[in-house]
Amino acid sequence: MYIGVDYYPEQWPKERWTEDVRLMKELGVNVVRLAEFGWQLMEPEEGVYDFSLYDEAIELLTKNGIQVVLGTPTATPPAWMIEKYPEILPVDQNGTVISFGARRHYTVNSEVYRDFSAKIVEKMAKRYGQHESIIGWQTDNEYGHEKSDRSYGNVDQKAFQTWLKEKYQTLDTLNEAWGTVFWSQTYTAWTQIPVPRKVFQEHNPSLLLDFDRFCADAYTSYNKLQTDLLRKHIRSEQWITHNFVYTGQAINQWDMAKDLDFISFDNYPVWGGLPEPIAPAAIAHQHDLCRSSKDGKGFWVMEELSGAQGWSSIGYLPRPGHIKLWTYQAIARGAEAIVYFRWRAARFGTEEFCHGVLDHDGKPKRKYREVKEVIDSLSVFGDDWIASEYKADVAVYYDVENAWAWGIQPQSNAFDYKHEFLRFYSPAHRMNALTDIVTKESNLDGYKVLVVPVYFLTDPLVNEKITRFAKDGGTVILSYRAGVKEQNNFVVEDTLPGALRELAGVEINEYESLQLGQNNSVEGVQGSVSGVNSVASIWCDLVEPTTAEVLAEYRSCFYEKTAAITKNKFGKGTVYYVGTALENEIMDALYADIFKDAGVTIMSSSGEEVEAVTRTAEDGSVFLSVVNHSTENKGSLTLPEGTWVDPVSEEVVKGELSLEPLAAHVFRSR
Amino acid sequence: MYIGVDYYPEQWPKERWTEDVRLMKELGVNVVRLAEFGWQLMEPEEGVYDFSLYDEAIELLTKNGIQVVLGTPTATPPAWMIEKYPEILPVDQNGTVISFGARRHYTVNSEVYRDFSAKIVEKMAKRYGQHESIIGWQTDNEYGHEKSDRSYGNVDQKAFQTWLKEKYQTLDTLNEAWGTVFWSQTYTAWTQIPVPRKVFQEHNPSLLLDFDRFCADAYTSYNKLQTDLLRKHIRSEQWITHNFVYTGQAINQWDMAKDLDFISFDNYPVWGGLPEPIAPAAIAHQHDLCRSSKDGKGFWVMEELSGAQGWSSIGYLPRPGHIKLWTYQAIARGAEAIVYFRWRAARFGTEEFCHGVLDHDGKPKRKYREVKEVIDSLSVFGDDWIASEYKADVAVYYDVENAWAWGIQPQSNAFDYKHEFLRFYSPAHRMNALTDIVTKESNLDGYKVLVVPVYFLTDPLVNEKITRFAKDGGTVILSYRAGVKEQNNFVVEDTLPGALRELAGVEINEYESLQLGQNNSVEGVQGSVSGVNSVASIWCDLVEPTTAEVLAEYRSCFYEKTAAITKNKFGKGTVYYVGTALENEIMDALYADIFKDAGVTIMSSSGEEVEAVTRTAEDGSVFLSVVNHSTENKGSLTLPEGTWVDPVSEEVVKGELSLEPLAAHVFRSR
Amino acid sequence: MYIGVDYYPEQWPKERWTEDVRLMKELGVNVVRLAEFGWQLMEPEEGVYDFSLYDEAIELLTKNGIQVVLGTPTATPPAWMIEKYPEILPVDQNGTVISFGARRHYTVNSEVYRDFSAKIVEKMAKRYGQHESIIGWQTDNEYGHEKSDRSYGNVDQKAFQTWLKEKYQTLDTLNEAWGTVFWSQTYTAWTQIPVPRKVFQEHNPSLLLDFDRFCADAYTSYNKLQTDLLRKHIRSEQWITHNFVYTGQAINQWDMAKDLDFISFDNYPVWGGLPEPIAPAAIAHQHDLCRSSKDGKGFWVMEELSGAQGWSSIGYLPRPGHIKLWTYQAIARGAEAIVYFRWRAARFGTEEFCHGVLDHDGKPKRKYREVKEVIDSLSVFGDDWIASEYKADVAVYYDVENAWAWGIQPQSNAFDYKHEFLRFYSPAHRMNALTDIVTKESNLDGYKVLVVPVYFLTDPLVNEKITRFAKDGGTVILSYRAGVKEQNNFVVEDTLPGALRELAGVEINEYESLQLGQNNSVEGVQGSVSGVNSVASIWCDLVEPTTAEVLAEYRSCFYEKTAAITKNKFGKGTVYYVGTALENEIMDALYADIFKDAGVTIMSSSGEEVEAVTRTAEDGSVFLSVVNHSTENKGSLTLPEGTWVDPVSEEVVKGELSLEPLAAHVFRSR
Repeated sequence: MYIGVDYYPEQWPKERWTEDVRLMKELGVNVVRLAEFGWQLMEPEEGVYDFSLYDEAIELLTKNGIQVVLGTPTATPPAWMIEKYPEILPVDQNGTVISFGARRHYTVNSEVYRDFSAKIVEKMAKRYGQHESIIGWQTDNEYGHEKSDRSYGNVDQKAFQTWLKEKYQTLDTLNEAWGTVFWSQTYTAWTQIPVPRKVFQEHNPSLLLDFDRFCADAYTSYNKLQTDLLRKHIRSEQWITHNFVYTGQAINQWDMAKDLDFISFDNYPVWGGLPEPIAPAAIAHQHDLCRSSKDGKGFWVMEELSGAQGWSSIGYLPRPGHIKLWTYQAIARGAEAIVYFRWRAARFGTEEFCHGVLDHDGKPKRKYREVKEVIDSLSVFGDDWIASEYKADVAVYYDVENAWAWGIQPQSNAFDYKHEFLRFYSPAHRMNALTDIVTKESNLDGYKVLVVPVYFLTDPLVNEKITRFAKDGGTVILSYRAGVKEQNNFVVEDTLPGALRELAGVEINEYESLQLGQNNSVEGVQGSVSGVNSVASIWCDLVEPTTAEVLAEYRSCFYEKTAAITKNKFGKGTVYYVGTALENEIMDALYADIFKDAGVTIMSSSGEEVEAVTRTAEDGSVFLSVVNHSTENKGSLTLPEGTWVDPVSEEVVKGELSLEPLAAHVFRSR
Repeated sequence: MYIGVDYYPEQWPKERWTEDVRLMKELGVNVVRLAEFGWQLMEPEEGVYDFSLYDEAIELLTKNGIQVVLGTPTATPPAWMIEKYPEILPVDQNGTVISFGARRHYTVNSEVYRDFSAKIVEKMAKRYGQHESIIGWQTDNEYGHEKSDRSYGNVDQKAFQTWLKEKYQTLDTLNEAWGTVFWSQTYTAWTQIPVPRKVFQEHNPSLLLDFDRFCADAYTSYNKLQTDLLRKHIRSEQWITHNFVYTGQAINQWDMAKDLDFISFDNYPVWGGLPEPIAPAAIAHQHDLCRSSKDGKGFWVMEELSGAQGWSSIGYLPRPGHIKLWTYQAIARGAEAIVYFRWRAARFGTEEFCHGVLDHDGKPKRKYREVKEVIDSLSVFGDDWIASEYKADVAVYYDVENAWAWGIQPQSNAFDYKHEFLRFYSPAHRMNALTDIVTKESNLDGYKVLVVPVYFLTDPLVNEKITRFAKDGGTVILSYRAGVKEQNNFVVEDTLPGALRELAGVEINEYESLQLGQNNSVEGVQGSVSGVNSVASIWCDLVEPTTAEVLAEYRSCFYEKTAAITKNKFGKGTVYYVGTALENEIMDALYADIFKDAGVTIMSSSGEEVEAVTRTAEDGSVFLSVVNHSTENKGSLTLPEGTWVDPVSEEVVKGELSLEPLAAHVFRSR
Repeated sequence: MYIGVDYYPEQWPKERWTEDVRLMKELGVNVVRLAEFGWQLMEPEEGVYDFSLYDEAIELLTKNGIQVVLGTPTATPPAWMIEKYPEILPVDQNGTVISFGARRHYTVNSEVYRDFSAKIVEKMAKRYGQHESIIGWQTDNEYGHEKSDRSYGNVDQKAFQTWLKEKYQTLDTLNEAWGTVFWSQTYTAWTQIPVPRKVFQEHNPSLLLDFDRFCADAYTSYNKLQTDLLRKHIRSEQWITHNFVYTGQAINQWDMAKDLDFISFDNYPVWGGLPEPIAPAAIAHQHDLCRSSKDGKGFWVMEELSGAQGWSSIGYLPRPGHIKLWTYQAIARGAEAIVYFRWRAARFGTEEFCHGVLDHDGKPKRKYREVKEVIDSLSVFGDDWIASEYKADVAVYYDVENAWAWGIQPQSNAFDYKHEFLRFYSPAHRMNALTDIVTKESNLDGYKVLVVPVYFLTDPLVNEKITRFAKDGGTVILSYRAGVKEQNNFVVEDTLPGALRELAGVEINEYESLQLGQNNSVEGVQGSVSGVNSVASIWCDLVEPTTAEVLAEYRSCFYEKTAAITKNKFGKGTVYYVGTALENEIMDALYADIFKDAGVTIMSSSGEEVEAVTRTAEDGSVFLSVVNHSTENKGSLTLPEGTWVDPVSEEVVKGELSLEPLAAHVFRSR
């Protein structure tokens, strides 16, 4: 498998290159990513190209047996370009032009910028498309990151209007679809339609959702501009990818993935200014998102954190063991290659406190040794492991447009989309049930349980899919705010949960949005949740069963004794409705029963910090990876039946496995 | 009496209209408000008018015996207008132009906008001014709401300069009045005078106060433009009103009311994002403000909340019972008509989570039934009730310019104008003493007690009124920061409390502004407050009695033992000075004594959640309304002497009345 | 000595002037500052000058024996100028133009503004430069205050580019020095270089540091424009100063001081909106900063707080005794003259709540009496006291560019530069060891201990100075993040602490930035700190001793037992390294040992609220001043050996001195 580093030869004197490459070889690196911020070097003035620096670097790496991934440099348009064509710069919601001086200072809606992008990409493709040691390409870098996904300038407005015209054909259709009759917003010319700049109140939610779709489409088409040009010139073995980050922006990775050979991901479980890493399930679900992006296909981690990160703020120092743990976690959940960010901390620039495998002094120390241990171990079993099959019983539905709709109308100040998604995803993670993220295009065959968290913005096809899944015997878990919106962000006219009403066997005739610090409480009244109490926060649906039975009830306010969780038989399947945001204990009790009934495979462990994943190798043997995310506490895992062998030490383990803090193991069944 | 709903036929297919009107009739609705956001429908392109939709709706309503209030649609200028005349758009303090895309996106200082407004208003007036079932008009909608009261663009600056020229005639007068010699701000041309855009420090407080006056005047004259045009064309029975909201903006409802037949109010005791309703006294004082706006005249509640409200954030779900309670509270304090907002929740647009009598699914449910019960009950006694007289013993002074002056210089970060106003208003509310809000133009005859909270910006005529009131035997309650400022926002040259010094019999030679979290303490030393302790916050006047006696003293800091509350005999009256912000217990003890001495009628109840109001009917019988705002606790009221009859159930009550949570009753004395 | 008031005759009717001057004389005032905001009066229209008002005021003062300091009025360009030349206005980071309407609304980079400034300064210099009662000049007012230090407009950008061209000569040098190869920022024309306007991420830290240097240089050159012109016309006895404030802005007072005769300071231990005064050591270190600004030279307090201060927010009322205490503290630490701000509170303008010796009513009261007592006392011994020598054993290193570098990259959200500086300065203050602030140009001879707090941005000359100081027998205290940056804000390539590694006898191979609320703990393991525990916050260096010995260790996390404080013998000296931010107790224990070993003179007192300073008079006698900053608690000081006499009361004290709250004494040794 490929394991490598992100390398910036341009940031170091050439005298150092030899030593860098020597240390990389010693480390076992077989791939480096290069050039993704090197536009100015490759096009020092308009129309003048100079690839000598990267030529030289690639030659040195090639000679040393290290292969190369090349990034197109379009995340950083050079100063000369911005000076001459300032219309490239993005504009914020107040109309403030974003300045040159950092990165991502362009709007994809600028035709000028698309032209420049096309030229540099084509030049690179022509120069390196046939190169033997260049194995693939990364387009741009982290599309949309750091609020660069939405731009509100005049070129953006014009592009938005064009996009809308394409989508709606006539203004009547658009006016109807947006409900512009509200507040007298009916448009009588395409040119009247604004981008959502600052208003006194709030924009039309249908416009906002279309604006997010437009922004995402604009990026998708911008990426396609690059992939089309690359494919024209590169040899067929070279692949194309893009390194995504998941920070809720208006980017549609599923659409974009169609133009890519596979997805890449920049894996930073902790970032500048964070006091500690995000939760294990939060990391895991990002890997699941990666796999889902191209129908289960493996992905690259194009940037894997290797040291403390930060710009003007730093934060948490990854502990000894974290490199191995996060590497194993990523591979277990689908990563096929790991590229550590970055080879060495820069001595200058905004990211000089992004620490790498080496720090500023360039000396191999603890982190270098840890990476070496990982590479050495993976050299024993890595190829087999990444070739093995990850097969999930549990599907968790995700639709990026639903996330946007929630961003537009969170409805409660306590609502955070990702947090609520994880509320319904994490019980599976805590039980080590394998999960897939599924989207509207996914095939649901083979899953036993389908979790559909906060399914606010609905899609008729998805409603149909969910219904069929249940009818055919599957188990569905629905949550509060299911079925509320139509595709154009209108509230449905049916009584809630709208199209899912019969399925769920309930009606929601009243609901309450709870604000930060406000709570109700819930008590289980039947089945596994019986007697379990929980705080209820964020949202309370007053659930009225029609055909469903009641599993839990509210315990205060005027809707005391109203149902909060229900279970309904539908066709051959079962549908649960969870009408509020509940705590782990009751969620785990609920899921335990559901998984048991549905025959979901789980692995028992000491708690949420322990994460175990099994995958089946081509020879039928099973890889079992297990990590303990806790930096302080030991953990344990009840190993599945059989004999498990550590492929490196060849030690054999069985039964109850004890795990040191930050332990990371891979075993193979004998 | 009129009870109705706010209806938006344009938001629903015509097929639904018949069903809507059928349900309205069944409900007992006799009036609907229409059209206040319908500009684009009525003027789909510049100069082209089309009233067919509202014609049809009005006809249907008329046929069903429902009368109509028409809103002029000027809160929502259409897209075609903004595209062609972008100078209509308002500008914020940073110079950012507010975008089209929501509502209230205009500055009243735009002549272009005034012209367009005049045309649509005149067209409507001509078309509907003689219509038999149209009973009145609402101008625009919630002037100044959501920060639309102040605009800082070039047209605003020019209008401000013109307004100043009119006010001051010469620059010398203006320079003198503003103290522009400070920081070298003397103006030598009118064109030099800025609107208060962003500065490094803070603007001249005299300029800021005049800017607020200018903004309010601009809205008043804009409203007059509409009322003048309407009156030219409408039949004399049609009245004109405007629906105000009270959120501290630079709008002068007292001035504007002179051009209106009566005031309307949009009554939202809880709004999007609020975890719970505002305090009972806070709602009550808004109704008192309404009554005060036109010298005690009754008002309409043009929007009465009927369901949970919100845009992107929702919040508190009004409890079963709230509709009746808030309706009764409003009528008790002067509302003569109730229009519920809104008939049905919209399925689209910014306000789609403003829930109405019906929700998105259009089915009559709990809220519909509650409204029906209210209407049925009011049909028995409503007309008599609204015809009865509300007569207060206690006057509470309010001057909107004083509120602006506090907004400009809060002096402590713990100071909130409305909160402090309520600190001095609420004790009366808690004792069920009837209160009026009085302003500088009010006649004070007949009041027993005059409360003058945080009277920072003074007016010589008001000083004179207060003095005469006391001299003639009235009781005055003054607070900290009384008498500080002259009309031009200069600090007075007298020792504080300036013109009220002799009246109060005290001098304030030192004071301290306390910040959030900082406190002193006060202990009563004489009379009813004797031995009562209180935290003292926000502000401490070090009160030095000249002729007054000391009722309470500070208990810490170097001014320990300095007076905090004093009482002074002045003429035939008595003047209290409360030098700091105190807690309810000591305030109630103080007011209890004051009210007793002054002969104020009170009603004893179990606490601040219970609110009782008596009004005298034309036949001499008395209406007693009583509500319990608590959603959780029972309350009680000691009924005034006599026999009280529920006009609906005809049950008789006497003595101690027990009140369920959210109980709302009206009794009539037999 | 000079004691006076800041006076604004232009703000009062001339009828009042006589009374004001009479009261000043009665008070004992011998100097007033005038005219620093009087531009509009002196140049009422472009090119027309009128000095009559100040002529008259100066004449009145002169007649009454009061001398005058004149301020140039350039902090407040008049309205006519801004209207005609709006390019004078500064621009913020978003590109928003700062409006006329307050003060400091100019950018020093405007040539137009420089021309106007030159003209008014020259006019004033010519008119008053020979006046007998005018003793000196203040240029402008509080340069850079309230964010006026940095402007981001087009003229600023152009000036920045010119400054850079001057500094770097070639773009290659600049590109190299800034590391612009990072993120493709290489500049190929000077005109491409931005000022740091809003970007999506963060600007290049090397650009940011140069921008701060540029801003400071621009102000220095602007000030020099004024001082050069003044010196051309004034008599040699007139001095020139500027009144600085220390709020972390991009102003370099040390550079600017070269063009001034001495430094002045505006001393506000508490300001509008603050609930209480800043810590005693924070005030003290400001006075030390003043003395350091011109190599130990005494300074004027040009504005000494005399009452509660504030604009729209007020806050803390200085207690009886504070005027004397803060006056004595300032003189003890180097002030040679005190000018109270302000004579009387203005009745208008932004600063109308800046209370003065008199309040709005103009009557002499408590504050007047307190100032009188101070002046009377100082008339007995003030001249001798200010002539006496302040001699410190302890030098604390400060470099304003280091402060800027920290501002650009605080690295932890818990880091506050001033707070951390004080962490290492305050132990000396608590022990009443005399301190000097030293800068890169200071001579270190004669100091016993050199404290170098958070020395992040290094200078080779300073590294050399520190090294020599230790080698020659001095004691050095280094802190975490020492030695990290080169002058161009690059991270050094050496292992940390870089150039100080041998000196400290440690290596830092890992470190962690702790965020707000995060802590580690440290325990002393040797010497005076042995057994003392402390919370460790903000930053943890994992200190690896090479030649040093370990004084304290971390007590948690994976680096438990790693060194946190070390001590190293180096040459004839000793070097301490404190790798984290620790609490007072352990810092005091550490410093106690260090000071004892180094022979630093200390005075034992009851706590940090007591501050004692000794100075040696020309006759060899010693002045001992002691103040108790506590408003609530008594304090005590163990007097140094000998007999101490109060020069006013002639009382004699010895041994243990008890101090009332807010006591302020000066004694002289007999």
